[in-house]
Order: sequence, then C-alpha cells, then structure tokens
Amino acid sequence: MVSPVRISIDAMGGDFGPSVVIPGCALARERYPDSEFLFFGDESMIRPVLDAHPALAAVSTIEHTDVAVRMDDKPSQALRHGRRRSSMWLSLEAIKAGRADVAVSAGNTGALMAMSKLCLRMMAGIERPALAAIWPTLRGESIVLDVGATIGSDAEQLVGFSVMGEAMARALFGVHRPKVGLLNIGVEEVKGLEYIRAAGQILREGNIPIDYAGFIEGDDIGKGTVDVVVCEGFTGNIALKTAEGTAKQIAEYLRQGMRRSLLSRIGFLFAKAAFDTLKEKMDPRKSNGGVFLGLNGMVIKSHGGTDAEGYSAAVALGYHLSRNGLMKKIEDGLGHYDRDRAVVAAEQAEVVDS
Amino acid sequence: MVSPVRISIDAMGGDFGPSVVIPGCALARERYPDSEFLFFGDESMIRPVLDAHPALAAVSTIEHTDVAVRMDDKPSQALRHGRRRSSMWLSLEAIKAGRADVAVSAGNTGALMAMSKLCLRMMAGIERPALAAIWPTLRGESIVLDVGATIGSDAEQLVGFSVMGEAMARALFGVHRPKVGLLNIGVEEVKGLEYIRAAGQILREGNIPIDYAGFIEGDDIGKGTVDVVVCEGFTGNIALKTAEGTAKQIAEYLRQGMRRSLLSRIGFLFAKAAFDTLKEKMDPRKSNGGVFLGLNGMVIKSHGGTDAEGYSAAVALGYHLSRNGLMKKIEDGLGHYDRDRAVVAAEQAEVVDS
Repeated sequence: MVSPVRISIDAMGGDFGPSVVIPGCALARERYPDSEFLFFGDESMIRPVLDAHPALAAVSTIEHTDVAVRMDDKPSQALRHGRRRSSMWLSLEAIKAGRADVAVSAGNTGALMAMSKLCLRMMAGIERPALAAIWPTLRGESIVLDVGATIGSDAEQLVGFSVMGEAMARALFGVHRPKVGLLNIGVEEVKGLEYIRAAGQILREGNIPIDYAGFIEGDDIGKGTVDVVVCEGFTGNIALKTAEGTAKQIAEYLRQGMRRSLLSRIGFLFAKAAFDTLKEKMDPRKSNGGVFLGLNGMVIKSHGGTDAEGYSAAVALGYHLSRNGLMKKIEDGLGHYDRDRAVVAAEQAEVVDS
Repeated sequence: MVSPVRISIDAMGGDFGPSVVIPGCALARERYPDSEFLFFGDESMIRPVLDAHPALAAVSTIEHTDVAVRMDDKPSQALRHGRRRSSMWLSLEAIKAGRADVAVSAGNTGALMAMSKLCLRMMAGIERPALAAIWPTLRGESIVLDVGATIGSDAEQLVGFSVMGEAMARALFGVHRPKVGLLNIGVEEVKGLEYIRAAGQILREGNIPIDYAGFIEGDDIGKGTVDVVVCEGFTGNIALKTAEGTAKQIAEYLRQGMRRSLLSRIGFLFAKAAFDTLKEKMDPRKSNGGVFLGLNGMVIKSHGGTDAEGYSAAVALGYHLSRNGLMKKIEDGLGHYDRDRAVVAAEQAEVVDS
C-alpha cells in the first residue's frame, strides 16, 4: 500500500480563513482518500468547521496557534510577528521537519515567499525561487513561470526555471518530454533581451536533457505551443494579469450582448450548455494554485479570495505534485544541469591551460 | 475651408501590397472626403487598382519606384537596399519635405522603425521612439505604449512616453485630461521595478500637467482604468500579444461550444446579434494601426496581414491624429516637460551653490 500524502495547511490564510479552507480540504479529501491533513491556526475557529466534515476530521490533526499573518502585512512585518509562531510559518516548518509532504496557504504572497525562503532555504544550485502558474490553453494546460516571485533575472536563472518547470510538467501532466519555450518578443534567435538570448543558447547547446522549443511570443501561451513557458517574474506577472483582464473583458461583452434583446436571451437559454463549457474552461478556480519552485520543500499558494472549490484545486495540485515526486524530479533535473555546468567549466579551464 | 489632410502611403508595404492598400485608402477616402493621397511604389501595380476607385484616384498622385522593402528584410538590409529609393523611405521623406501630413505603411516593423529614425530623426528631448497601440477596453479605448519599438527603458524615457501618449489621447479621444498610468506589478508606490518607481515619482511630483493615476496592473488595461498605459517596449509587446492570444483562445472555445449540439446551434442563431456585437468589439481590424511617437513626423504602422477594412482603420487613425494636431500637442507637452527638467536642474544647481 502506498503511504498517504500528508498535507500541511495554513488554516488562517486567505480572505476567509477556516470557513473556506476546511471545506476546500474536505472536497479534496473526498477526491483523494489517501490524503491526510495537518491544520495550523486558531483551534476555536478550526474545530467547529472541521466537526462538520467528519470524513476529513478523521484524517486531520489541529495544531493551535494564536498568531496569523494578515493579508496586508508587509513581508518584513510578517516575519517580525509571525516567525516561528504563525500558522503560515508552522505549516512550512512541518514540511521541513518531515511531518508533511506539501504545504498550502492562501495567505499573502509576499509573506509566504519570505517565510518559505527563510524556513525552507533555496535548493542547491538555485539562486531565486519562481512562482509557477497553471495556464489553461487550447491544447490543455501549460505551466508559466516565474509569474512574480522575484523581479529581474539572468540567463542562468532562466535555465534553472526551465529545469524546474520541466520537472513540474512531467509530474503534473504525465508528459514524458515536455516542450519548454522562452517568452520573448519575436521568435528569431537574434531577437529580444540579451539574457533571454543567452539562456536560449545554454538550453540549445548545453547537455541538459530538456526538449527546448526556442522562443515563443505572448500569443503562443494561450495556443499551448509549449508545455512550459519560462520568463522573468515581472514579465510573467504582467502576462498573467493581462490575460485575466482580457478574459473578464470578453465575459462582460458576452454578458451585455446576451441581455440586450429578448431574442438573444432566448438564444442564451438554448446555447446554455455551450456557455457552461466556456465558463468551466475559463474558471479561474480550476487553475487556482501557484507553486513556489526552488525551495527545499513544496509550497502551494492559493488565491486569497477563492472559495472552497478553488481551494480544493490548490490542495489537489499539491497532492498530485507530491504523489508524482516533484521534488525528486527537480533534483534530478538540477543534477543534470550542474553536471552540464561542471563540464562547461572544465572545458573552459582546459582552453585556458592549453 | 480647412485644408485637406495629405496622406503619404507606402503602397508596397504589407503581405498583399496595392491590392489591399488601395481599396483600404478608398474606404478611408469615402469616410473622410477631405483627405488626399500620395502613393509610392510600382506604378504598374498601383495604377490598375487605383483606376477601379475613381473617387480616390481623383485625389491621388502616384510616384513610381521599383524598390520595395521585403517583409522579412532585417532593418540593416532594408536600409542598405531601400534607403532613399524604396516606397517605404519615399513615403517617409514626403512628410519630412512637408508634402504630406502623415505616412502609413503596412511594411515590416523593424525596417519602418529604422527608416523613420534615420529619415525623420527624433524630436528634441526624446531619446527613443515608442510604438503606441489602441487597445479596446470595457470603457472604450485606451492607448498603450511602448508595445515594442525599443527594448529597455529608464525613468526619463517612461516620462517622455507618458507625455506623448497623453497628447495622443487628447488628439484621438477628445478627452481634456486623459488619465495616465504606469504598468507595474502591484499598485503600491514601493512595488515593482526601480525605473518605474522613479518615473512615478517624476510624474507625481514634477510640474508636468498630466493627470497621473499611479501604477496599474495587467488586468487594469482591459478594464480601461486609465486612458494611457505606459510601459517599456518588451513588457508592452508581451502584454499585447498575450491579450491577443487570450481573445483568440476564448473565441475558439465559443466556436467549439456552439457547434457541439443542435440546441447550441439554434441558440447561436437566436443570439447572433449578441455575437456580432462581441465580434465587432474584439475585431482586431478596428484597432489596427500603431503610431510611432517621438519622431519629427507622424508615422502609422498597419498590420502586414490586414485586409482593406483594417488598412482603412490605420489610415483613419492617421487622418484623425493629423486633423487634431497631434504633433503640436506633443511639442507643447514636451515643452512643459523640458521646463520642468530645467527647473529641477536649476534647483539642484542652487543647492550645490549654497
């Protein structure tokens, strides 16, 4: 029998705390019976909600703490009053101590980022973490990273993101050789920013076993041209938010159009199934959950304002990544990359010597 | 009587050359009878199409040249074989010589950019040009710049873009005080890239008469939170292409959904008016035409693959900007900015002296 996936939950995170977090976990537990939960937060708030979900309660433990990171805390404030004692910190420490396989929080992104780095530390060979998002596309789903964990990047960091994103695609989509593309303006090798071109060269010419597909442009993301879209955090965040804005804009146009006349209202009723499909495909709750990559531990960030259904998607994401050995896959990928760097360094040394 | 708007046309530009360009101009001429056209290109190709549009022919002149910039020419190649003699170059030179008020080309962007800079030169006080796009929003339309004329920027350049974009919004939308926002990740003053924060400070504290609305995020573009969205060219290009990709993706979902069952097909017929409204709102032809800002002359870049309707939109854009005195408005705006810079420099000098 396989051992259960142990999920560590910051029960106080998000706009609604336990009232959304617990029902979300209950949904996830229904779908993945081989999961167990460790809740951190105010027991007086957690207990009554948990009691309403006996199947979940049967596989859950609560560890009480009074301290919670607020949604508007700056990272420095969160660290000052929440280090070692907040529900967020304790949920991370549970992975570090080997008591859980993955942590989930809907708490504030900056604070979660800062605490994760401090508590879990970066993996060897990775300088900066990345936040990886799941992006619905015409071909299914892609992974886009970094969508805003850090700002600014260099070629080596983009290559690191590529290795980690590729490992995540293998763990999540079950694809054997996911295609990886670098987000740029123009697809020709000579185009775009210097550090992106340099990253392209390493991915093309290095001995890293990645299916590198070259540069892609903004409109390739929605097409699903590649499985993994790699970019620097500022760019990724702008792309993600812009796409969200465009989707909302079109939904609003449709809503207005459908209300305009009796005829279009009737049409809407007939075509309701089609609209429901669209709604489901674009449902932000379904792709809820970003993954902090590059840490010694798996941390899932849920949207703060999501509902139980959305929260369960973030938990499911953590479940799948853990079940499919994301951490091991990343370590293997980085191992190849390190060997590649060592080979390059040795070759350069030889050139210097001769 | 007001004098006509004289439009200089690179007739060989774009994927289809005169066969799309001339009918596009004919459409624009119908809508704006006070326009005149100067066509540059292969007369043997232009003449037959022009003869089919007698009303346009009556206000048009053809100037023959054998040389055309190819769609896949690198900027350096285009300059080598097209300088002083290609239809693209000659259409620009016509503005420089005061023979036309605005130039329109559907030719390749990099070449048009390089030729425009060389032929027209940058305006005093502007280091880099910007490509400004019209972006349909829930509140109407906004201007987004730079969407890829150059890569990389500093604070002063973003302020220059703000001044030029604001002038364009006044000329195009007839708004007295357009709202200007800087595209960033997070809206707090402390967030985002250093040069964007510095530009925000100049716009907030300087004496530039611009209605500066602060930072905006990617999803604000589609909402129409501001009239003018200012960003560096790499970011702007990624945002534009990503939004285009998302719009196509949703259109495809809808198409698939509508074909799925007889019921949804019937629904589609009933609600056709609503879909037509959506289609019109998102029609890329309607917002065709980017403007190169910062040059001593107005240059409109049309999409290379557009049809006559789309081309006419680019011509209409040039017509309106010329009729509403864009160049004068930009010069006035930059004048204020220069005076602001002079005041700051003087204040700094005083501090040093005392």
